[in-house]
Amino acid sequence: MEEEMQQVKTPSILPDASGHVQKFIDFMVKDEKTGACYRAYHLLRDHCKDKLEKDLAISSEDAAELKHILDDLSAEQLGAKIKEYGIVAPDTKNPLSDPYPFNLMFETTTGMGPGYMCPETAHGIFVGFKDWYSYNHNKLPFAVAQVGPVYKNEISPSQKLLRLCEFTIAEIEHFVDPKDKSHPKFSTVSNLEFLMLPRAEQMTSQSANRLCLDDAVAKGIINHQTLAYFIGRVYLFLTSLGIDKDRLRFRQHLPYEMAHYASDCWDAEIETSCGWIECVGISDRSDFDLRAQSEKSGIALVAQEKYAEPKEVDVTILLSAFKCVIRPNNKELGPAFKSHHKMVVEALKAMTEEKALEMKAGLESKGEFDFEVCKLQKFVTIKRSMVSIVVEKKLEHVRTFTPHVIEASFGIGRILYCLYEHSFYTRFSKTGMRQLNVFRFLPQVAPYKCVVFPLVKNKQYEDVAERITISLKQAGICLMRYTAGTSIKEKYAYADELGVPFAVTVDSETSVTIRERDSEDLIRVNVAEVAAVVKKLSNGDTTWADISQKYSAHTSGIL
Amino acid sequence: MEEEMQQVKTPSILPDASGHVQKFIDFMVKDEKTGACYRAYHLLRDHCKDKLEKDLAISSEDAAELKHILDDLSAEQLGAKIKEYGIVAPDTKNPLSDPYPFNLMFETTTGMGPGYMCPETAHGIFVGFKDWYSYNHNKLPFAVAQVGPVYKNEISPSQKLLRLCEFTIAEIEHFVDPKDKSHPKFSTVSNLEFLMLPRAEQMTSQSANRLCLDDAVAKGIINHQTLAYFIGRVYLFLTSLGIDKDRLRFRQHLPYEMAHYASDCWDAEIETSCGWIECVGISDRSDFDLRAQSEKSGIALVAQEKYAEPKEVDVTILLSAFKCVIRPNNKELGPAFKSHHKMVVEALKAMTEEKALEMKAGLESKGEFDFEVCKLQKFVTIKRSMVSIVVEKKLEHVRTFTPHVIEASFGIGRILYCLYEHSFYTRFSKTGMRQLNVFRFLPQVAPYKCVVFPLVKNKQYEDVAERITISLKQAGICLMRYTAGTSIKEKYAYADELGVPFAVTVDSETSVTIRERDSEDLIRVNVAEVAAVVKKLSNGDTTWADISQKYSAHTSGIL
Repeated sequence: MEEEMQQVKTPSILPDASGHVQKFIDFMVKDEKTGACYRAYHLLRDHCKDKLEKDLAISSEDAAELKHILDDLSAEQLGAKIKEYGIVAPDTKNPLSDPYPFNLMFETTTGMGPGYMCPETAHGIFVGFKDWYSYNHNKLPFAVAQVGPVYKNEISPSQKLLRLCEFTIAEIEHFVDPKDKSHPKFSTVSNLEFLMLPRAEQMTSQSANRLCLDDAVAKGIINHQTLAYFIGRVYLFLTSLGIDKDRLRFRQHLPYEMAHYASDCWDAEIETSCGWIECVGISDRSDFDLRAQSEKSGIALVAQEKYAEPKEVDVTILLSAFKCVIRPNNKELGPAFKSHHKMVVEALKAMTEEKALEMKAGLESKGEFDFEVCKLQKFVTIKRSMVSIVVEKKLEHVRTFTPHVIEASFGIGRILYCLYEHSFYTRFSKTGMRQLNVFRFLPQVAPYKCVVFPLVKNKQYEDVAERITISLKQAGICLMRYTAGTSIKEKYAYADELGVPFAVTVDSETSVTIRERDSEDLIRVNVAEVAAVVKKLSNGDTTWADISQKYSAHTSGIL
Repeated sequence: MEEEMQQVKTPSILPDASGHVQKFIDFMVKDEKTGACYRAYHLLRDHCKDKLEKDLAISSEDAAELKHILDDLSAEQLGAKIKEYGIVAPDTKNPLSDPYPFNLMFETTTGMGPGYMCPETAHGIFVGFKDWYSYNHNKLPFAVAQVGPVYKNEISPSQKLLRLCEFTIAEIEHFVDPKDKSHPKFSTVSNLEFLMLPRAEQMTSQSANRLCLDDAVAKGIINHQTLAYFIGRVYLFLTSLGIDKDRLRFRQHLPYEMAHYASDCWDAEIETSCGWIECVGISDRSDFDLRAQSEKSGIALVAQEKYAEPKEVDVTILLSAFKCVIRPNNKELGPAFKSHHKMVVEALKAMTEEKALEMKAGLESKGEFDFEVCKLQKFVTIKRSMVSIVVEKKLEHVRTFTPHVIEASFGIGRILYCLYEHSFYTRFSKTGMRQLNVFRFLPQVAPYKCVVFPLVKNKQYEDVAERITISLKQAGICLMRYTAGTSIKEKYAYADELGVPFAVTVDSETSVTIRERDSEDLIRVNVAEVAAVVKKLSNGDTTWADISQKYSAHTSGIL
């Protein structure tokens, strides 16, 4: 809302019209003796990383090879490299099988053929780009956000709640003009200073250091302002939830971890009992996704910028303007392709410059050209009379280009799990006899804001508790009526263990006590004011410290 | 929150451990000439309904048969009935093929074998009953709610947005003691009066009538208070969203539409251009789901009530108390079943009384008994030394029973679609030259609460608009910055078409106008007060009528 993003919902079962499946095929190898499975890519990556870190005498050619080894390897190439480097099963040191493909996407069957459960929500956002762009009145930059269920056929779900087959993610795709990756609100985060682990420091085995965002951009450590702005906002978001800032770092991807098209990637990693966990990925994915989708579907996913005045275009620096101008002749195309007419025209318009020149040559020499229309999954024959392809310098009124996308992808379940670990602590009961568990969830984050109960069971106190409960509900406060435990100590301890920040105890008919979980302090508040006080505290409109100054402390001997 | 329900999230891919698939197999028949598909059940149901409604001379035996015909028919029985009644393809009158099964659930493959995409969220709630019951301190009644994506392999997705393969539903499962289906808050809705279409009226082809909830319960039209309470709350919910109360009715299921275990079912139906659409289902599903899950999993899903004082139990009236007491001998069972020990014991404890008596007889005659442990999917041999089964009258301290469940299941997408239809209207522009579209979304429901723009483009007005935008965001208001259209009329018309209730126009540096969408009235408000006014209006804390009295109307000639 703050960023005026468009929030959308796209399907989670998609056909493979865009060749998406390929992206989520992973190559597995088996321990030849025990049958244990490993991801070939991970073994190779770990080997390279290890070698680069430990072998200081490595030649620069060898280092370069190790860094670039993972760009689009086929199963055969992966297998060859594993043999070449003598990589064995990490646990048993047994030899490994040849790599074989494994689909990380759940496959199903729909009325339209095979379908796949999406392992990300971003894909639907790219497919719908034309719509979102028009909803934004054909202006850049703008962002589209989606929260949704995603599915991954994990070979071994593990690491507590961190690796599951289905989970919720929230993704932001921020579309920008590649010529301008500055951000108008960068100044609101530029002074933030927090733990970062840039590429160079990782290569020399240093640990994360506190860096200022402004400096990181100025020194070229972070590629540009927009990426830095998102990193800053993610930092603010995670720490505002209650993530410990000393156990949160932003780690830049090493060259061999990064997709070849990405220009810069950072992971927000949170330290837990399972090590440093990647919880948010922030990356500049360039124009890769929109281009890939355009090519597969034959629908141009581009943006346009109107020039102040028309200009003769230097086409070589533009991403998708053609030197070749294609003019489909609809009178010829219409009767020839009938219901497919529109798709053929779209595919012609989305053609690359190389393809257009190839077609031009073909039409001139043979009079016709076999042209693949991806959407129809077949070739059609284009005749000379159907199109004219001319190479010309011309005045352009608009610049047409494929936007770049900055992506922030949040693993909601992982963030929550880390929050549990960072919020948990134990303390001894006042008598020192029992160790008690507490979650220090911030009031804004705690699922239950408050618990309400009478100090002793009697009609008068229960009536007051009921009245307070109703007023809290009317104020929109999610509360818990305490029903277990007998002594007041047990009741407090139970609420602490669930991370409920405030407890309202009815001990008279006119005023009650409110207890804060972490300080264990109590204040005395009139019955009529309880809902307003708890609401302000829960919304973060005030703090316990401020509230305690306004109301008298309660210090009777009960706790 | 109001009802203190537990909100949960359970998986949407589930194995078929509980035989869930069977429930979602539907029998199809094909038009033998055209190949068109129909659901056999629907054809048969429509035939029966038609016959019951039109054939007034039908004998009571025949009527009874028609009413009960759909209880659990097999493919063969369905086929036989279709032949017997001479049912043909409704569109062509061609003969029909034999019924064949079609799975409405999307199937996929997981690491644990076949998995199915859940067509409802309720199943996960039943599976987890033991946990939710213990979170509620082992007390009834309580409710569990879930909002989630569900998947149905629709043969023909159709009817605009009303029949999709994936959609969002919200389900409430309210667990009660079958002995007490009263509801403590029934009095808060009992005076509501709205359109209902009970069973008897449908059988005699009458239309819906306004009935009072209190009367409907008193006359036995609605089975009990809890069901009526949910019906009343659903009515309040839908009308508070903006659904037209005159195009909303509650229709009771006819006996042949209802599952045999259900004691009463009502659908909230909303009238649209596609007819009356079922949007919410409210039903008393008795103990069917928990019992079915118990039987399949071998884990008893029961509740207990402590008697005020122990009593000698009359076992025949209880649902799951045994006359037979089974005492597993853990010393014998442990070594015999090792890691399966716990599952075997659980299965023994969940055994029905009949099964226990059968085992007792087997052990006495042969010394052992082959006992199926569903969770292990195999039979184990129980020896005489492992258990003692005694039939005894004894003092019971607790009553053990399977709770009944009242379900409310909301089709979120359908409700939204109906809301679009009920909120849409057209009006002529003031000059009468153009027909304009408007969505009359209530402020609490509208996705964008307000639009902010300067009357004319200049630095001063734009600065004020920016300041107001920031203050609105800080107040948590979702707003739109208007970027299309040139004249103020076009800007208002665009916002009306998107259903934005309020428009803030900056026409001076000290005060601005706020326009309400439906009345098209404007008031003048100081810049500093805008956020507070829009917030109150958006939250429903005040109405436009009240606000217009407090601020001066703006009547300049611009609109």
